[in-house]
Amino acid sequence: MNIAIIIYFLGWILNVEAVLMLLPCVTALIYGEKSGIYFIVTLAACGILGILATFRKPKNTVFYAKEGFVCVALSWIILSIFGALPFYLSGEIPLFEDALFEVISGFTTTGSSILPDVEALSHCMLIWRSFTHWVGGMGVIVFMLAVLPLAGGGYNMHIMRAESPGPSVGKLVPKVRQTAKILYLLYFGITVIQMLLLLISGMPLFDTLCISFGTAGTGGFGILNDSTASYTYLQQAIITVFMILFGVNFNVYYLLWIRKPKDAFGCEEARVYLGIILVSTIVIALNIRHMFPSLMLAFHHAAFQVGTIITTTGFATTDFDLWPELSKTILVLLMFCGACAGSTGGGMKVSRIIIAFKQVKKELGNLVHPKSVKILRLEGKKLEHNVVRSANGYFLAYAIIFAASVILISLNNFDFTTNVTAVAATFNNIGPGLAKVGPTCNWSQFSAFSKYVFMFDMLAGRLEIFPMLLLFSPGTWKKGF
Amino acid sequence: MNIAIIIYFLGWILNVEAVLMLLPCVTALIYGEKSGIYFIVTLAACGILGILATFRKPKNTVFYAKEGFVCVALSWIILSIFGALPFYLSGEIPLFEDALFEVISGFTTTGSSILPDVEALSHCMLIWRSFTHWVGGMGVIVFMLAVLPLAGGGYNMHIMRAESPGPSVGKLVPKVRQTAKILYLLYFGITVIQMLLLLISGMPLFDTLCISFGTAGTGGFGILNDSTASYTYLQQAIITVFMILFGVNFNVYYLLWIRKPKDAFGCEEARVYLGIILVSTIVIALNIRHMFPSLMLAFHHAAFQVGTIITTTGFATTDFDLWPELSKTILVLLMFCGACAGSTGGGMKVSRIIIAFKQVKKELGNLVHPKSVKILRLEGKKLEHNVVRSANGYFLAYAIIFAASVILISLNNFDFTTNVTAVAATFNNIGPGLAKVGPTCNWSQFSAFSKYVFMFDMLAGRLEIFPMLLLFSPGTWKKGF
Repeated sequence: MNIAIIIYFLGWILNVEAVLMLLPCVTALIYGEKSGIYFIVTLAACGILGILATFRKPKNTVFYAKEGFVCVALSWIILSIFGALPFYLSGEIPLFEDALFEVISGFTTTGSSILPDVEALSHCMLIWRSFTHWVGGMGVIVFMLAVLPLAGGGYNMHIMRAESPGPSVGKLVPKVRQTAKILYLLYFGITVIQMLLLLISGMPLFDTLCISFGTAGTGGFGILNDSTASYTYLQQAIITVFMILFGVNFNVYYLLWIRKPKDAFGCEEARVYLGIILVSTIVIALNIRHMFPSLMLAFHHAAFQVGTIITTTGFATTDFDLWPELSKTILVLLMFCGACAGSTGGGMKVSRIIIAFKQVKKELGNLVHPKSVKILRLEGKKLEHNVVRSANGYFLAYAIIFAASVILISLNNFDFTTNVTAVAATFNNIGPGLAKVGPTCNWSQFSAFSKYVFMFDMLAGRLEIFPMLLLFSPGTWKKGF
Repeated sequence: MNIAIIIYFLGWILNVEAVLMLLPCVTALIYGEKSGIYFIVTLAACGILGILATFRKPKNTVFYAKEGFVCVALSWIILSIFGALPFYLSGEIPLFEDALFEVISGFTTTGSSILPDVEALSHCMLIWRSFTHWVGGMGVIVFMLAVLPLAGGGYNMHIMRAESPGPSVGKLVPKVRQTAKILYLLYFGITVIQMLLLLISGMPLFDTLCISFGTAGTGGFGILNDSTASYTYLQQAIITVFMILFGVNFNVYYLLWIRKPKDAFGCEEARVYLGIILVSTIVIALNIRHMFPSLMLAFHHAAFQVGTIITTTGFATTDFDLWPELSKTILVLLMFCGACAGSTGGGMKVSRIIIAFKQVKKELGNLVHPKSVKILRLEGKKLEHNVVRSANGYFLAYAIIFAASVILISLNNFDFTTNVTAVAATFNNIGPGLAKVGPTCNWSQFSAFSKYVFMFDMLAGRLEIFPMLLLFSPGTWKKGF
């Protein structure tokens, strides 16, 4: 393990975080908030430590996959610890574990909150909280790759693989750095379009910024106690559309951008993703029809909730914990499904679900015709053995961590529905669950131990499990082979 | 698809069922129960249809894997339909779907009951109900292979593979028929030992027979309304030990029988299985300590409930739905784990769980050292690629059917805990779940539609999914390739 290069890398992360904190500093200045001082303090701390760590580039630049995974896992942890400081130092979130929970929930785009009264926070805290969603959505390291002239690029691929969601890394163009740039350009562009539309619809600028950050990163932190319930139907509809758009594989947008609409609209994963949304919305709308004055309104709320859950955003316009069991069950299953690979959404990803179904179909075919040879295809291309193997490894690791988490959370002695949906909501980076963690509830009721379990789950969910497992696996730290 | 040979095969199943029904007939005679007449009627119907179907052996004896799967799936369905007739015709279970549910729950060794008052049934009905557990435990087709001189044996392996639990079929000896004989001999022998011990402990003969059938098949039907709660502690302890013994891979007993104790005690799966039981029992005993007058008693109840759930038997000595959430969560997870492959227990099987953990470990190793080649081993032997692939296919199909079932069951609008644990209890062939399907509840409250979903789940769980999926897959019925 090349410790020197990891420290160097983490130094750059701190430098980036210092720059990111300029946004809340400016916000504090505009609103004349004293709590801005804590951002300046943290910014300074990040900057000093970062500059010290990056002052000299290590001579040994050996960088393998294992360094990549460890770098990514540690980056997210460091980022979160420093990101939590302003909340804690200012006393706006009195407990450190709560501050850390909140900011991990932000960076991992989960959106679960321990705050009973979010409106009590100052503006600079609110915008930082929402901004973490935007940064975490596309990935802070992808951002670093895009803007910084780091090393020769030898390790870029290792890092990008560890941070990017989905069963295989889709490089848009051969160069990693170029890919990262294009991704952030598209991300920035679509976010700005949403902001403009929300502004036109009459939403205040501050709300527009925070809500758009939360939508783009598929995060889900709101700045009002009722999440997004008090915005107009038009504004909610805009949010619905953009949540769904940010759950689409960014490959599709790139293909549209380079004028290949046929390829873009042919994307298998995106088509399945939109199909699931359509069917779920229709079934739920019919199921909740009696709870709303019109079918149109039932459809509006169904679409918003389906969009918010499948993309793992976690905004809410209504308390779906009161909906009939069929609708709730569909929403819980969508939590696991998640959005497309290569989007900002979490969960297992639609492409992995497709791979699962295709494997079962292949297995059935093999049983009937043991001698036939069938090839698994995704997006028309042959699925390599190692992609399928790694998808299966992911599923199994997912099930194991899920089961272990539910056992640990059950120590609170809350009900089964709460425990299962709380783990589902954090591990899939969604936000709300059912029962005690429903859309109108908050997470401060859990023990400190449970909160740390949830933090692990959020990070493991965002980084797709293996970086976090490797960080804690003794084999990773052994010398040599 | 060779329809003629399938009909011939199903004819033999009916003949076997006619013979099996002699037991309730004799019971009715002893107790002078008029309802015995319905067994005689059904026996006659089975016999006549069976003899007609097996009168002439078809000329075309082509028999591939696909015929094997279809034969097994249809056998279990036919067996259940005729097995349900006495309950329905006698009016002791007034609804046909309830009678069918009860008998499928019996044959699949689930043990979920729709009866609010089981003590109201006549003796011949009770013993038939429990006897289905014993028959279904080791498998009716394995029994047929053991005793009937069916065909040249070309298709024996296809059938055994489809009915036997576990990721790969363990033939004890090279000949399938010999293996089936040894399995039934061991099964019969251990059941008789349990019966003798229960008789010595003072249990009445009728109870002894029914409870031993339920234990051996890891079924779980009791003949008292409180399941096994009113038996003495000694009797409960005997049941605990034998439940756990019937959950062990029968390979172990065969190895002991042929005097290879070293190989027997070295069995990796059995060791992990016993380890899980030990750890779970200790944790639960400590967790429920405050609910019982002594630690010893807490341990007694913990061991019984762990044994009954991991082996998927489903007896109960106490209402564990009232236990703390940690204990309940551990029990729910044990439902999925299940017993050893090659035992009479259900669930996913310990060996598949071991394969899952080893795959995750291998995946982690591969990420750190992409060029290293690691070989998965189970019981010291290399795991063939197709065993791992088929285990993964099983996991994925399991998850898909589980999710689909929970959605369909949610139409009853019961709570989430009930729906999830009800599907878990039937799909893993356990019996009781939590909340509305807890140990003190019964299943008559569900809609007829839900009951059919549960019946499918029970059969799919017992036959390890693929035979049932293939039965309903259009590709199976296509001509030629």
